[in-house]
Amino acid sequence: MAGARLSLTGTNLSRPFTSPTPSAYLRPTIISGVAQNLSYWDSIHSDIDSHLKKAIPIREPISVFEPMHHLTFAAPKTTASALCVAACELVGGNHEDAIVAASAIHLMHAAIYTHDHLMLTNSLQSDSETEPKISHKFGPNVELLTGDGILPFGFELLAGSMDPAGDNSDDILKVIIEITRAVGSQGMVTGQDSDGEFDQLIGQTRRCLHGCGAACGAILGGGSHDEIEKLRRYGSIAGNGVKDESLE
Amino acid sequence: MAGARLSLTGTNLSRPFTSPTPSAYLRPTIISGVAQNLSYWDSIHSDIDSHLKKAIPIREPISVFEPMHHLTFAAPKTTASALCVAACELVGGNHEDAIVAASAIHLMHAAIYTHDHLMLTNSLQSDSETEPKISHKFGPNVELLTGDGILPFGFELLAGSMDPAGDNSDDILKVIIEITRAVGSQGMVTGQDSDGEFDQLIGQTRRCLHGCGAACGAILGGGSHDEIEKLRRYGSIAGNGVKDESLE
Repeated sequence: MAGARLSLTGTNLSRPFTSPTPSAYLRPTIISGVAQNLSYWDSIHSDIDSHLKKAIPIREPISVFEPMHHLTFAAPKTTASALCVAACELVGGNHEDAIVAASAIHLMHAAIYTHDHLMLTNSLQSDSETEPKISHKFGPNVELLTGDGILPFGFELLAGSMDPAGDNSDDILKVIIEITRAVGSQGMVTGQDSDGEFDQLIGQTRRCLHGCGAACGAILGGGSHDEIEKLRRYGSIAGNGVKDESLE
Repeated sequence: MAGARLSLTGTNLSRPFTSPTPSAYLRPTIISGVAQNLSYWDSIHSDIDSHLKKAIPIREPISVFEPMHHLTFAAPKTTASALCVAACELVGGNHEDAIVAASAIHLMHAAIYTHDHLMLTNSLQSDSETEPKISHKFGPNVELLTGDGILPFGFELLAGSMDPAGDNSDDILKVIIEITRAVGSQGMVTGQDSDGEFDQLIGQTRRCLHGCGAACGAILGGGSHDEIEKLRRYGSIAGNGVKDESLE
């Protein structure tokens, strides 16, 4: 699997991993998505955008929701969230079952991206790296605070997607655990293991989201333990290998 | 209730709200706690500390876990987490049922406290307020990143406290929703409604944790909807009125 050809921008998901019965994973939706190449991913991102626009409208108080809205959409798209939906479909789940989790993953990514571009005093980064990569429309205090608000909002979205009968509570909690690990201590540890440098650390934390996204989609799609772990591995490798707009 | 005498440092929880049958809430543990005054709260904080010390030991990689450990315990105690345990017991639950949630609430508070004391460039705060209130042992980049890691770790602790049979999944998801609201957009909105100033905003966000803590305890203790809402209100008022070490 490590040598598998991974091309997320080219969207080759037809053989995400060697499986004894690969045809079982080739649902009609995925085949259609592969045939259309980028439009499959574009359609996922479009659905995530729509969900987030409804979840975070610009409303009163404007001073809270305008920065939340802006910073959520100012962060570049990440294939981590798209992988979540694709993985869900790959194991036989419905597209819609993974949109909330995929949206939550984008919110985690947006919060990290926002904080990653804060200007700090006593910076450990070199001068060239302290140049702001995004426009600091709201000032650092508001961006710090808003990033801190966006992250738990992702978990709120997820926890709130519990159906009234509570039939999906266990799966949602598993997904919350996956995401907390990816963006929390585990993501930091993974980065730390690979390289002690701060930039590598945050880069690796973001890459962890790819494995997490794929695993979350597999959980929500009702995948087996084996499928979840294979898709997590695929996602992690894809996260390392893909030229993601957000992974510079 | 709004006029009730609130004294958290003096620990008068014997009449947290007017109840038609107050004696039902006076469990032996609480009576003992009230009789001992501060020692009741001290014992709760001690239990939370023990739980967190096990959850975040200083281990390899040291560069990740030493800052997490340090910043978790560098934040002053908050009565929001103690209220969680007290509320759980008030509605008839066991002390132990609320320790994980109380620990998660302390982690949220610690993450906010850490970020609140980051030194930012282009600060909107006055000179006197930009003086560091805690020692910046690890430098701002690490403190920013660690705060970002501590917050999801709190949700990871909570989600991981699901029992194997999944009997408590719904309650845990409700608690996650409560906490995400308190530390996320809702906390920011509440602060924004009361005052547009940044310092007020973060102060109010932290105060929201008190109402949240009491509500979470009541949920985990099996309280009724009415009990949960009354305890939330009590906690919110207490959070505004109490001289909390962390609420300056």
